[in-house]
Amino acid sequence: MIFNSDNAAPVPPAVLAALSKANHGGAPGYGADDLTQAVEALMREVLRAPDAVVRLVATGTAANALSLAAFCPPWGTVFCHEHAHIAEDECGAPEFYTHGARLSLIPGAHGRIDASALARAIEASGASVHNQQRGMLSLTNVTEAGTVYSAAQTAALVDLARAGGMPVHLDGARFANAVAATGTHPAELTWRAGVDVLSFGGTKNGLMGVEAVVLFDPERAWEFDLRRKRGGHLLSKGRYLAAQMLAMLEDNRWLDWAAHANGMAARLVHGLSARGIALAHPVEANILFPHWPQGTSARLRAAGATFHDMPAPEGFEGARLVTSWATTEAEVEALLHLL
Amino acid sequence: MIFNSDNAAPVPPAVLAALSKANHGGAPGYGADDLTQAVEALMREVLRAPDAVVRLVATGTAANALSLAAFCPPWGTVFCHEHAHIAEDECGAPEFYTHGARLSLIPGAHGRIDASALARAIEASGASVHNQQRGMLSLTNVTEAGTVYSAAQTAALVDLARAGGMPVHLDGARFANAVAATGTHPAELTWRAGVDVLSFGGTKNGLMGVEAVVLFDPERAWEFDLRRKRGGHLLSKGRYLAAQMLAMLEDNRWLDWAAHANGMAARLVHGLSARGIALAHPVEANILFPHWPQGTSARLRAAGATFHDMPAPEGFEGARLVTSWATTEAEVEALLHLL
Amino acid sequence: MIFNSDNAAPVPPAVLAALSKANHGGAPGYGADDLTQAVEALMREVLRAPDAVVRLVATGTAANALSLAAFCPPWGTVFCHEHAHIAEDECGAPEFYTHGARLSLIPGAHGRIDASALARAIEASGASVHNQQRGMLSLTNVTEAGTVYSAAQTAALVDLARAGGMPVHLDGARFANAVAATGTHPAELTWRAGVDVLSFGGTKNGLMGVEAVVLFDPERAWEFDLRRKRGGHLLSKGRYLAAQMLAMLEDNRWLDWAAHANGMAARLVHGLSARGIALAHPVEANILFPHWPQGTSARLRAAGATFHDMPAPEGFEGARLVTSWATTEAEVEALLHLL
Amino acid sequence: MIFNSDNAAPVPPAVLAALSKANHGGAPGYGADDLTQAVEALMREVLRAPDAVVRLVATGTAANALSLAAFCPPWGTVFCHEHAHIAEDECGAPEFYTHGARLSLIPGAHGRIDASALARAIEASGASVHNQQRGMLSLTNVTEAGTVYSAAQTAALVDLARAGGMPVHLDGARFANAVAATGTHPAELTWRAGVDVLSFGGTKNGLMGVEAVVLFDPERAWEFDLRRKRGGHLLSKGRYLAAQMLAMLEDNRWLDWAAHANGMAARLVHGLSARGIALAHPVEANILFPHWPQGTSARLRAAGATFHDMPAPEGFEGARLVTSWATTEAEVEALLHLL
Repeated sequence: MIFNSDNAAPVPPAVLAALSKANHGGAPGYGADDLTQAVEALMREVLRAPDAVVRLVATGTAANALSLAAFCPPWGTVFCHEHAHIAEDECGAPEFYTHGARLSLIPGAHGRIDASALARAIEASGASVHNQQRGMLSLTNVTEAGTVYSAAQTAALVDLARAGGMPVHLDGARFANAVAATGTHPAELTWRAGVDVLSFGGTKNGLMGVEAVVLFDPERAWEFDLRRKRGGHLLSKGRYLAAQMLAMLEDNRWLDWAAHANGMAARLVHGLSARGIALAHPVEANILFPHWPQGTSARLRAAGATFHDMPAPEGFEGARLVTSWATTEAEVEALLHLL
Repeated sequence: MIFNSDNAAPVPPAVLAALSKANHGGAPGYGADDLTQAVEALMREVLRAPDAVVRLVATGTAANALSLAAFCPPWGTVFCHEHAHIAEDECGAPEFYTHGARLSLIPGAHGRIDASALARAIEASGASVHNQQRGMLSLTNVTEAGTVYSAAQTAALVDLARAGGMPVHLDGARFANAVAATGTHPAELTWRAGVDVLSFGGTKNGLMGVEAVVLFDPERAWEFDLRRKRGGHLLSKGRYLAAQMLAMLEDNRWLDWAAHANGMAARLVHGLSARGIALAHPVEANILFPHWPQGTSARLRAAGATFHDMPAPEGFEGARLVTSWATTEAEVEALLHLL
Repeated sequence: MIFNSDNAAPVPPAVLAALSKANHGGAPGYGADDLTQAVEALMREVLRAPDAVVRLVATGTAANALSLAAFCPPWGTVFCHEHAHIAEDECGAPEFYTHGARLSLIPGAHGRIDASALARAIEASGASVHNQQRGMLSLTNVTEAGTVYSAAQTAALVDLARAGGMPVHLDGARFANAVAATGTHPAELTWRAGVDVLSFGGTKNGLMGVEAVVLFDPERAWEFDLRRKRGGHLLSKGRYLAAQMLAMLEDNRWLDWAAHANGMAARLVHGLSARGIALAHPVEANILFPHWPQGTSARLRAAGATFHDMPAPEGFEGARLVTSWATTEAEVEALLHLL
Repeated sequence: MIFNSDNAAPVPPAVLAALSKANHGGAPGYGADDLTQAVEALMREVLRAPDAVVRLVATGTAANALSLAAFCPPWGTVFCHEHAHIAEDECGAPEFYTHGARLSLIPGAHGRIDASALARAIEASGASVHNQQRGMLSLTNVTEAGTVYSAAQTAALVDLARAGGMPVHLDGARFANAVAATGTHPAELTWRAGVDVLSFGGTKNGLMGVEAVVLFDPERAWEFDLRRKRGGHLLSKGRYLAAQMLAMLEDNRWLDWAAHANGMAARLVHGLSARGIALAHPVEANILFPHWPQGTSARLRAAGATFHDMPAPEGFEGARLVTSWATTEAEVEALLHLL
């Protein structure tokens, strides 16, 4: 009963198979190999973005921080949700890679940036030489609260950024889950909504540690490549990242895996609801935040369940449950049974 | 006939097997898994350093730059060989991670730092507030010229650094080859010689992209961990790095692989020598720099050989050949036959 | 009628006289001159801090940013008031000098940090490797709202920082006004309350552009000196900064000038109050935030008054008035007369 | 007998007079005052550069480091003379302000960059993603060895930079002395030779601590202004910097002062030559490097002379003497008399 994170799961057999298949003969280093080229070609197809530049790195933090640094100067402010991963879980990597940009934390219910709060923050942001300047908007889809942005919601926030003269980053560590959840074409959730750079997650969806950065403006490629190398994120044996990403993108696996995770979460919601257990946020993808009676968490853990503790109302205990490609119906039922 | 780099080779079957074996069930993220703990324990044993802190990252550039940043302040100077990897092949990662430290490039024949040149450079380095300050010494073993430092040579250079008040980093991207070549215990080449932090290479020796940073002073761990996370180099699914490193360290494989690579290089040297082909540097590990007659490079490439071009004396062509765990006698003989 | 800022005023005759007096013969550069030594000695006496290290720079932004960098690592968070000068008026200098530290903006009425809000923010701040770490507390006295912290209020906030393991900076751009306002000995408002480093303002109090950084722990001196030089803030002809600061500290001028400014502000308050004009914040030093009837601002400006616009309630106009050593009773009366 | 540095001298009466004159009434802050505008206008005239942007800072290190940062990215290399001020005397300010650019130290006799050495270094500099990239050329005129570049020499080096795709900075801490020495119009030594940004020195020529950065491309102004503010180098009371710079530029004073300093140096050369004392470098401006008999330095110091020690051939003592606007014939004769 592994519900602590989607990064706690093993990788699907297709990933191991792809590594095996890639493991013969010599291959040129640093992304010049055939598989890396194939990833870019397939990603362009998947996103219907024929000019997009696709670069692989090993962590989501690297993908995010390099994406921000590619667009936001040291004196810029990145507007993001107050609980965004870049704000809470990256030990200041955005500040490090941007050489000192600032985060402006925007509130919003259920992990989504509140549009009017964003508008006010942009409006209040400085334009004189005394102020940190407007820099960038960073969205997250799936959000940290497990909700998703629709294409329209994305575009509405992007429009505010554009009106403020800012480019837009999308942290898609769980982008596959957002696409699977909305049923919207990934192009609609990204460049057609005005997103400039996408962290396209692989790791939480089933890879060993592979994320793609997608730059929709190909003119950004060279500077990005220098920043990636300088950050130590250009792997010499690129084929082993590429083989995994390719296996995930091929045959629609990325969406199948995400849909499975989302489905297991829905099944959990159904069961929790039947037991009268409330949720802190609507469950729109693969993350749940139940408030269950006190004493429950210890009991579940004693039975072998893993999950994170979260704040909860008086008299309750809060938890965060995350499902993955590997979550089984049996695990779900076992957890529900314990409740 | 793959001789362009040891990172062009595939990975040994034991590495794939280890990944398969690690790929079941849940595992806590970010290095809290059992395999990562096991790597630290085994590395301590291998290096006879029971207090050492061992951290895994995916690239040698990250290992080096994080190691330097852990010891050298922004206003410090890193003394290194003029052709060191940190100086020539990392797009300024040392400057990025240290927030602006400077490299002082020391000459020295055959890739080894000349002790008196180092002594002079340290002596000439500034101590007033107007000067970049003394920061650190960074050695590389195997050197970029394919030579090795003995324990005594290492200790002699370390002593100069110590006399100048500086700690010492060892870039061991090919450390296994140096140990195999010298037959010296790895402790003698590192902490017993006074090295403070070691980049212990896995990738060039056969892993997909795994390097260990070994901090011989455990008090450095926490700050290093923050720097690693902030650099985006803390992988969530640590087991897949750890499984590989463990497979390499177990059963002495790391030295077997390196000894094989060194042996193939020695065989090449023998054959080149028999054909009267001179070498730019003594071949002490797994890298060779032949000067062969003009026209040779094109002919070899036409026959399928890969290698890098290098400068050469008038009338000759220079090349760099690197052997690996995967180099076969047949490849070596095929290349020699073409010559 | 110059009320836009205390930095709009000219300098007192004593400052020009001191420059003249200093302007003969040779003087060693970079702070080795006699006057710079004399400033340190006198400042130690003024602050009753016999071991304090005193360093001069030309701007308050430099004093603040260097002070923060001396204590807060790149991965640290600086807790400060949401309207602190370091947050709103320095174009990210704190982030630049600290190499990427983050500001955590704490609310609080009338420019003073709310103690319970600070306690909550410290409590909520991260301690895992995924989080930006606790770094430092930065207070401002006089605050940006023109209020002051008493010694007890200062100590209470410092205690919260200490309990959280953090050192404390005091931005004293208008420290003289705070001392004059409270009648408290400057030692009580600084090191005796637990402050580690003080930006001691000279410019707003009457100098051409001179601020002192006072480090109460002398062991911090050398690293600070390197950071200052590296930031380009070590002036070669130190005597001209020192002569000004010395003139200000001698004969109690720094408090006389500040008391004069505070007195002019009090006189303004009296007059505004008599005219029924409300103030956004209590006036405790030399800054006032009146809300006057719409149309007033234009009328005053037409008559030659300078001041900044500020937000105000419906039907009113807001302004910020700042008095200085140079503000005359005539100016005050002229302004009041116009109202 | 003050010969240790031109920054050891007092300031000319005209500078104090200008400060006095500027010291009345209110003035808008941060460079919006009339005097700062007047400096820009006059500097444009002096340099025949009607679109140039002129910004004042308090130190040469700030002027240089901000100038480099305005043009050279973090992954760029600044090519400069191996003994340039930016390399030897700024504690890494260039690395700090550029966020980690690297210096490539070019040799050259008598402080001037050797053109063929520069060409080779540019040629050898990297262009792949693994290398620090070409960034910028930084020249110094007067050089640290006291020699000058002619317009033709400047243009020849600039051409090499341009061919390598790089912009050019000129460190003119003693630019006035170079103009006075060559008799060349300052436009010829700067933008007409292809220089993009000039550190125009005031401090060594007689001001208290004022340097101008001249950006010949006005589109660079806004980013430069943000960098200056962020570096803490935007002084609030701009009039006191501007008044000094204006006094220096008006009535040709800047060249008169420099010509005087150069003349005193020439007089020293004459006297040293008559005494058979050799010089390490040709004296073309206001710096001399005599090699005099052992024992001389102590004797001169005992008599009250100040100067720096320098290396010298066996049997000799080396010194650096610098003359200034304040050096008198009497001082020169007194020194020569002692010899």
